[in-house]
Amino acid sequence: MTKTERTYLDWNATAPVLPAAREAFVAALDMVGNPSSVHGEGRALRMLVEAARRDVAALVDTAPSHVIFTSGATEAANLVLTPDYRMGRTPLAIGHLYVCEIEHPAIREGGRFAREDVTSIPVTPAGIVDLDALETLLQGHDKARGLPMVAVMLANNETGIVQPAAAVAAIVHRHGGLFVVDAVQAAGRMPIELEALGADFLIISSHKLGGPKGAGALVSKGEVLMPVPLIRGGGQEKGHRSGTENPAALAGFAAAARFAAADIAERNARIGALRDALEAGMRAVTNDVVIHGAQVERIANTSFFSLPDLKSETGQIAFDLEGIALSAGSACSSGKVGQSHVLTAMGFDAALGGLRVSLGPGSTGADVERFLAAFARVVSRRRMTGNAA
Amino acid sequence: MTKTERTYLDWNATAPVLPAAREAFVAALDMVGNPSSVHGEGRALRMLVEAARRDVAALVDTAPSHVIFTSGATEAANLVLTPDYRMGRTPLAIGHLYVCEIEHPAIREGGRFAREDVTSIPVTPAGIVDLDALETLLQGHDKARGLPMVAVMLANNETGIVQPAAAVAAIVHRHGGLFVVDAVQAAGRMPIELEALGADFLIISSHKLGGPKGAGALVSKGEVLMPVPLIRGGGQEKGHRSGTENPAALAGFAAAARFAAADIAERNARIGALRDALEAGMRAVTNDVVIHGAQVERIANTSFFSLPDLKSETGQIAFDLEGIALSAGSACSSGKVGQSHVLTAMGFDAALGGLRVSLGPGSTGADVERFLAAFARVVSRRRMTGNAA
Repeated sequence: MTKTERTYLDWNATAPVLPAAREAFVAALDMVGNPSSVHGEGRALRMLVEAARRDVAALVDTAPSHVIFTSGATEAANLVLTPDYRMGRTPLAIGHLYVCEIEHPAIREGGRFAREDVTSIPVTPAGIVDLDALETLLQGHDKARGLPMVAVMLANNETGIVQPAAAVAAIVHRHGGLFVVDAVQAAGRMPIELEALGADFLIISSHKLGGPKGAGALVSKGEVLMPVPLIRGGGQEKGHRSGTENPAALAGFAAAARFAAADIAERNARIGALRDALEAGMRAVTNDVVIHGAQVERIANTSFFSLPDLKSETGQIAFDLEGIALSAGSACSSGKVGQSHVLTAMGFDAALGGLRVSLGPGSTGADVERFLAAFARVVSRRRMTGNAA
Repeated sequence: MTKTERTYLDWNATAPVLPAAREAFVAALDMVGNPSSVHGEGRALRMLVEAARRDVAALVDTAPSHVIFTSGATEAANLVLTPDYRMGRTPLAIGHLYVCEIEHPAIREGGRFAREDVTSIPVTPAGIVDLDALETLLQGHDKARGLPMVAVMLANNETGIVQPAAAVAAIVHRHGGLFVVDAVQAAGRMPIELEALGADFLIISSHKLGGPKGAGALVSKGEVLMPVPLIRGGGQEKGHRSGTENPAALAGFAAAARFAAADIAERNARIGALRDALEAGMRAVTNDVVIHGAQVERIANTSFFSLPDLKSETGQIAFDLEGIALSAGSACSSGKVGQSHVLTAMGFDAALGGLRVSLGPGSTGADVERFLAAFARVVSRRRMTGNAA
């Protein structure tokens, strides 16, 4: 790392741990025991786990018994995306998975479905799931093999564009299908009500909310129709997810969920104002900047932009040297900074890629100013060197 | 919890977090970023993850590139126990899984194998895997469906009995099979060398070592023959395990691994002396106590005993009220305190069950004294009430 003062603008990759989450996490770390043990130590930790379940359920306005804790959102995605379901004890087959083209890789990879049983749903050039295309796909679905399952995220991780979940749900349910919503980037950044969204299953992650890494949840609409477990063993989480529970991580997750649910409107108004100032500032520096999704509904914290002839790899490194941590899309895949599948899906010249700035509750006007000063220098150098990037 | 002073004697369920692990964990918690991000913050966390990989590899004397981090041992078990392997890019089928009768449920459930493709290997009355029975089973293995896979734990979680891994490995490899070793209870409680054990894969857990919960590892002998991933998505862990890495948990895991590897002989001599004093003390109180596995090699920290006519549920509650946290076997399955499958496998009258005392680096002579005082009271009350339990 350089010695430059650092400005963290990559909250969609991971949010710094909130003070309240850190406190709850560290306090639980010092409690000895296994929450499945019946002695006093175990029972105290069990209470902590169940309290966390109530807080996480409240964030998406559902019952605590609908929450299955996992090690993170990717595991939750692999749990829910499977052809093998049970209605009570009766097996129920899901015949095909339809995933939106702009989903995170955790969803696009299709979980436990065979690759040939996964089909992409296109998005419009505006970056919104193409509802007509979805309708056509589901009309062609072969029910003989099982029900259709559709996965469309609530807010895109790269652009922040909000997807029309209720409209998707209406189509999916008219065709007798199951609707899975990846709400990882939406949670805490917009209000979420599982029932109002029409979601059968919803995925959330602790560390995107300001909780610790290592915790996530699959939240279901009910308790009867459930996926065959991904991880079998000791029978924790009512048999839906075996493995020793992680009370410290869950206590931190819960604290972050409580924070996310409180004052969400005011918080996002403030963050949205920072984001708008940042985008106005970029436009003041250069008219060449393209801000993806600026014309449609976005979560308040995200700005994904491209500059002609600035490759995202080059841009990311340039900003890093300026002390600004931002990203070239999603952070996963170990440092791979190639094309953005989201921009490709939107029909944008993806060879250039884009750069994502994402803010959070801790972001300040000073962060935006430092970013804009760096942005001006990066643009100016690019001009001087004749687009050497 | 009662207000009684508490004595924690359930280190096999989970070990209290070691000070060094806590320190490493909390320090990493305050580092902002995602280890897969390419900016400075991400790179610093990447270094932490790779340093943790070296420490965990060193604990079992293998190369860091052989370590795949998971959310815990149960996930690692579900990753390794699958009929679908790849030799490089070529699919390779495992036809049948043979698991020792006394394995932890995380192994006994068989991971991704269908139930009909899992067979139990019996143990002798001494609690040791029956090598002749294993030989016979593998002679009957139908190679047309794929290779055999055998899972035998290194140290049993309830009795502490050490299994003859190298002898198992010789049989398994003679039959062209793969050998999976659950070393969750053995790690830190006895020296482990992956190659010397003859293990093809080995499973370890952070929280049994004094690291935080939420981290484990699947360690492989090489890098060519690997299971098809359980969790797909962003491609972390070289594609073997997707999902945002958990640097704080891994830093804590690594600190615990370093602690476990250092001074293991002296530490276990001290713990073994405490355990021996505890067992001698129980025998001094009553000749009726049966100590399971006392005649064979055990890890130094575990004592699993039965008292005639004292049901394990009753005993566990009685000790809990005395301020002693111990267990009636494994802690998993949410408070289920029924029969011990390990005792059943050993041919013991399992209706009674047993009680497990497990010690750790923080255990003291005072802990043993408090346990023995409580033990005397429990035995005395049992006599007075005419075995009302």
